Amino acid sequence: MGEHTVASFDEELGQVSRLISDMGELASSMVASSTKALLKSDNGLAQRVVSDDAIMDARQRELDTRAITLIAKRQPMAQDLRAVVGAIRMAGDLERIGDLAKNIAKRVGAVGQGATPRDLSHSIDSMAQLVLGQVDGVVEKYAARDAEGLAQLRADDERIDVKYTSVFRELLTYMMEDPRNITACTHLLFCAKNLERIGDHVTNIAENAFFVLTGEQLPPNRPKLDETAAAVPAA
Amino acid sequence: MGEHTVASFDEELGQVSRLISDMGELASSMVASSTKALLKSDNGLAQRVVSDDAIMDARQRELDTRAITLIAKRQPMAQDLRAVVGAIRMAGDLERIGDLAKNIAKRVGAVGQGATPRDLSHSIDSMAQLVLGQVDGVVEKYAARDAEGLAQLRADDERIDVKYTSVFRELLTYMMEDPRNITACTHLLFCAKNLERIGDHVTNIAENAFFVLTGEQLPPNRPKLDETAAAVPAA
Repeated sequence: MGEHTVASFDEELGQVSRLISDMGELASSMVASSTKALLKSDNGLAQRVVSDDAIMDARQRELDTRAITLIAKRQPMAQDLRAVVGAIRMAGDLERIGDLAKNIAKRVGAVGQGATPRDLSHSIDSMAQLVLGQVDGVVEKYAARDAEGLAQLRADDERIDVKYTSVFRELLTYMMEDPRNITACTHLLFCAKNLERIGDHVTNIAENAFFVLTGEQLPPNRPKLDETAAAVPAA
Repeated sequence: MGEHTVASFDEELGQVSRLISDMGELASSMVASSTKALLKSDNGLAQRVVSDDAIMDARQRELDTRAITLIAKRQPMAQDLRAVVGAIRMAGDLERIGDLAKNIAKRVGAVGQGATPRDLSHSIDSMAQLVLGQVDGVVEKYAARDAEGLAQLRADDERIDVKYTSVFRELLTYMMEDPRNITACTHLLFCAKNLERIGDHVTNIAENAFFVLTGEQLPPNRPKLDETAAAVPAA
């Protein structure tokens, strides 16, 4: 990133980076807790995720204020400016991951009213583990300044999309088998969709982090993503 | 916004504003076309929305580049800086409205395979009209610098949420009545959810536009929003 005439620009940018890492850890914990709450019908844990979202929002506001103050005070140019703008964008995606985890948590009560078949729980759990691995991975690789790892991580989002399509099909099948499954499965459908969207935000974060670390853009996004519009099982 | 020592800052900010208005008009047209395509099973129109999204993305990139160049070149302080950052945020929300319209368009084929009951079409159409009114409204009120109107518009998002909850219930009912409706209704459920999310992005835009125009934050967000987790009809 080169040297700065004003030494403490890097210190202040470091503080912004640490806030990003804090938000990343909180995002990871919210995703882990919300999916655990969903699969164990744990309303208490779900409630905690809802409260955590307020902390996430506060951290994003703090990061925004710090980043904007940093721009105004230090007037960074080109590359440095892009680093600060990149941090603002990463914070935006992390905040949205928190929102999506909260939305999963808020559906725990509604899903809990029906019993989730074991196979389905297994599929959703395995999708959730994939997503959690991506969230943890992007936070670690950003902290370790591992640009190559971030590029690989972006490519791995495809595994989530494949899993989502399969969960989507499974949910439709359960709904068709027994109309009493429809309400719970509809909420699970939104939960699965939220997990898929969390994966997309991880992709955005990986792209921004790569740019902040290297000053280069990753090659254009691979063709996206929600293939369920085509994945229509015969009714 | 006060006078500037460098006269052309306002000109450059004006260009950024015009890009926001362009993106707003495109967003409005994409929302109108995607819901029309959905309700008329018009695959050609749906395809056009998918192409429009590439234009939207290009405009957002142009706005981002201009805004960041503007900050780097003019080094605006405080209020002016916030105006530019506000524009970057508004562009982000408009781009996401485009994404959501595209997602609706991409579901047109999957929904078209089942016949949508007339009552349901009517409900979705009326939700779409509410959302479209909000999108058009926020673009107009931002262009007219109508801060009071923006505050009112944010409050009006509640009507969309109420409508969404009712469409959600209706869709569950249709699915329960006949399993052959499940596939199409599932896609319609995501379309309705996308419309509700478009409303949320309009709310964000109204808040940012209000801040850019007045330098004041609107009072904290009203309690949010997706009430469907509680709206579970007896199965």
